[in-house]
Amino acid sequence: MNDTDAPPTGTVRARVAYNGADFHGFAASDGVVTVEGTLSDALRRVTGTSKRISAAGRTDAGVHASGQVVSFDLPLRTDLEALARSLNALCAPSVAVRSMEWAEPGFDARASATWRRYRYTVLNSAVHDPLLVDRAWHIRAPLSIPLMNLACDPVLGLQDFASFCRRPPVAGGDREPSLHRWVFEAAWREEGAGILVFEIRANAFCHQMVRSLTGFLVDVGATRRPASDMRAVLAGRDRNHGSRVAPPHGLVLVDVGYDGRRVHP
Amino acid sequence: MNDTDAPPTGTVRARVAYNGADFHGFAASDGVVTVEGTLSDALRRVTGTSKRISAAGRTDAGVHASGQVVSFDLPLRTDLEALARSLNALCAPSVAVRSMEWAEPGFDARASATWRRYRYTVLNSAVHDPLLVDRAWHIRAPLSIPLMNLACDPVLGLQDFASFCRRPPVAGGDREPSLHRWVFEAAWREEGAGILVFEIRANAFCHQMVRSLTGFLVDVGATRRPASDMRAVLAGRDRNHGSRVAPPHGLVLVDVGYDGRRVHP
Repeated sequence: MNDTDAPPTGTVRARVAYNGADFHGFAASDGVVTVEGTLSDALRRVTGTSKRISAAGRTDAGVHASGQVVSFDLPLRTDLEALARSLNALCAPSVAVRSMEWAEPGFDARASATWRRYRYTVLNSAVHDPLLVDRAWHIRAPLSIPLMNLACDPVLGLQDFASFCRRPPVAGGDREPSLHRWVFEAAWREEGAGILVFEIRANAFCHQMVRSLTGFLVDVGATRRPASDMRAVLAGRDRNHGSRVAPPHGLVLVDVGYDGRRVHP
Repeated sequence: MNDTDAPPTGTVRARVAYNGADFHGFAASDGVVTVEGTLSDALRRVTGTSKRISAAGRTDAGVHASGQVVSFDLPLRTDLEALARSLNALCAPSVAVRSMEWAEPGFDARASATWRRYRYTVLNSAVHDPLLVDRAWHIRAPLSIPLMNLACDPVLGLQDFASFCRRPPVAGGDREPSLHRWVFEAAWREEGAGILVFEIRANAFCHQMVRSLTGFLVDVGATRRPASDMRAVLAGRDRNHGSRVAPPHGLVLVDVGYDGRRVHP
């Protein structure tokens, strides 16, 4: 087959939700069930060919998504509505394709994204909740939202998040990748009794950044460390600041933006 | 040991939550894991003796509770705060004892209850939601809340629910138990996009009553049958009315009332 036989292709943008408890993270990896692996298996079964999938956020094992965005190329003759139905039938109940559309030329779910929004949920109560086991981090010590929001202030704007990122090993001679990120919003609020929600929106996130910040902020909220520590720890560029990384099951990738426009389902 | 050696006892009232997906229903039954079995095993481990547990609602397999109320007798010298902590440590994460207190003399969680409130959640959307798999019944056909609420009208007040109850076999010569129940409230509302919630409060419920009503009302909401069918089907006293019983995972026992007073945690 030569190139002239290939049907013209376009890029598909899909909004995807999944239950992180059912997967060893987003990125395909041998021998474990991942979101990417599940999606690409389903795509191969329906279209007959393998696709490279790009994703706005490479979520870790246990992290959920309600508004992940992925992209891949398909022949322009593809019926996207029928494809979405087939993928949903194959991927239910753990993954859902919420919407699917042709994207503008050159679109890439990862490279084109201008911001990501994550939400972390804490159950702040004396007793655990059996109906929130896989959704919220249970913290018994009373947390102060004003203190946690005070500690969010130094996070806003362009910051170096070396203190809050798990860094991949850098090969000899390679330059260390930048850990500077633009944070547009970062705030806690109470959503119903004892349900504390942290939402953070940034141009991008480095590895474990939201969970590291959440663990630190919870320590501030419990008055185990002062809010003023945030500025000092950011400046220190050292992960050994003494706060835990929050567990993955409280975290959801809720939305991804492109050129400032929200992607609607 | 004679009676005079026995320490004086009182009745404990406890508010309990559980994840129905982890149990074969509330009532103890040989060879399966039940909420009652889990609670009484934990009580025996902590107190050293077996207790008879009374419960306001004997929920079916898969049905959740956020506000179930149970009662049992204990020596008055028992430290309830320490007991609740021990039970929570033993029963986590599937069951939680939300509160525990000494009840008035003669209190029985089942016999003293004057009303129960159940909530049924439907996800009404074209695509399923991986984060609501164990919490909501997914219905693709658009549902009309006004039509469903119209069909709720004939349910209010004192009604015979023979058409909406699974009747236990009656032994020869025994009188059939009454299936009349007082319904104080029954209404649907939308809680966020596509999340439809049905709440019903009644003096008591017969077996599968909420799920049978929900299945019927969803057929009305999808215009598969007219709202006026409700009155006719109630009068017909016949379970073979053609609507399904809604699945258990959308149902939660949320609250129980005693003498009109809400039991607070």
